[in-house]
Amino acid sequence: MKIYQQDIQLRERPRGFHLITNDIISNFHEIKQIETGICQVFIQHTSASLTINENADGSVRQDFSMYFNKLVPENDPDYRHDYEGADDMPAHLKSSILGSFVSIPIRQGKLALGTWQGIYLCEHRNYGGKRKLVVTAWGI
Amino acid sequence: MKIYQQDIQLRERPRGFHLITNDIISNFHEIKQIETGICQVFIQHTSASLTINENADGSVRQDFSMYFNKLVPENDPDYRHDYEGADDMPAHLKSSILGSFVSIPIRQGKLALGTWQGIYLCEHRNYGGKRKLVVTAWGI
Amino acid sequence: MKIYQQDIQLRERPRGFHLITNDIISNFHEIKQIETGICQVFIQHTSASLTINENADGSVRQDFSMYFNKLVPENDPDYRHDYEGADDMPAHLKSSILGSFVSIPIRQGKLALGTWQGIYLCEHRNYGGKRKLVVTAWGI
Repeated sequence: MKIYQQDIQLRERPRGFHLITNDIISNFHEIKQIETGICQVFIQHTSASLTINENADGSVRQDFSMYFNKLVPENDPDYRHDYEGADDMPAHLKSSILGSFVSIPIRQGKLALGTWQGIYLCEHRNYGGKRKLVVTAWGI
Repeated sequence: MKIYQQDIQLRERPRGFHLITNDIISNFHEIKQIETGICQVFIQHTSASLTINENADGSVRQDFSMYFNKLVPENDPDYRHDYEGADDMPAHLKSSILGSFVSIPIRQGKLALGTWQGIYLCEHRNYGGKRKLVVTAWGI
Repeated sequence: MKIYQQDIQLRERPRGFHLITNDIISNFHEIKQIETGICQVFIQHTSASLTINENADGSVRQDFSMYFNKLVPENDPDYRHDYEGADDMPAHLKSSILGSFVSIPIRQGKLALGTWQGIYLCEHRNYGGKRKLVVTAWGI
């Protein structure tokens, strides 16, 4: 068994859902060294998250934005943590609903995603800045 | 360390939440070869997902269906991605809320689930067809 | 590659969201033995869960309680599984929304969490009792 780990910094993206599968693959060539294994992608932030979903039709990602903005409203008068802006506490909540990491099987040096699956960066802040990922791959 | 990986195809199931712990165990005997490790189950689809929850009382799984159908409504006029049917966009959203994979410790050749834990296939489409899993187990 | 696994029992905590990063680190010294790897924390229950979120301001955790209590109401007349108390079925649902495990990169013998990230025990029962975790770390 071998294991590789690397930091990847994502450029700033606007609030919304963004396909980043290629950002991972093109920056982490060690995946090719693994015949059978797992690749984990972890985001080191609490106001952005990662998920796996549809990789083709951009309208899915637009609907994700619309839906999660309804599900986790801004300016709920019951929020106590509100001094970093209206998008702050909703960003924390969305991050935990969607999760801070994804783990994907590796097969023959490639991510064994389904035909329609891609990795999303879920950017929940209006101005989230660059985002730091730690990617780790292990296997034989 | 050793690692095993296998495809498992699940038979078609109706929309809802289904216990599949035995589908994993009975099709992936390599778990028995591992004294201490992890088993990951990954679903290669964006309209079905996996989670861990109560393994005994079927009414829990019925309540899951009821709840998630309320949480993610069909026919929201704000959906843009609606041409594959009323259950399509909700299926994508439910998949990301619940997640595409579960990872479970292995101890003495068995999944170290709690007494009441089982693995659910969360089938979000009315006619989702067969579903493809990739199961990976590693350890010593 | 080496792998370590251990049980950790958490003391009873009240319903709510609780930082447990130090409970993990101080009870699982084997993390220090790993230069590059992953640590998984798994909870063996279906009415409590784990997530990663803000580690400093306690008002975030209070807002988590408020939000998830609204998102998953008690006493919905549509629940069938209601004989273990009003907090029972909501606890199962919250557990699956938030998830039963977290996986965190290890770097130089430490969890490679972001500056503001901590591990939360999400206790969804009013009287959940002690909670059992299985922590597993692997790497080189």
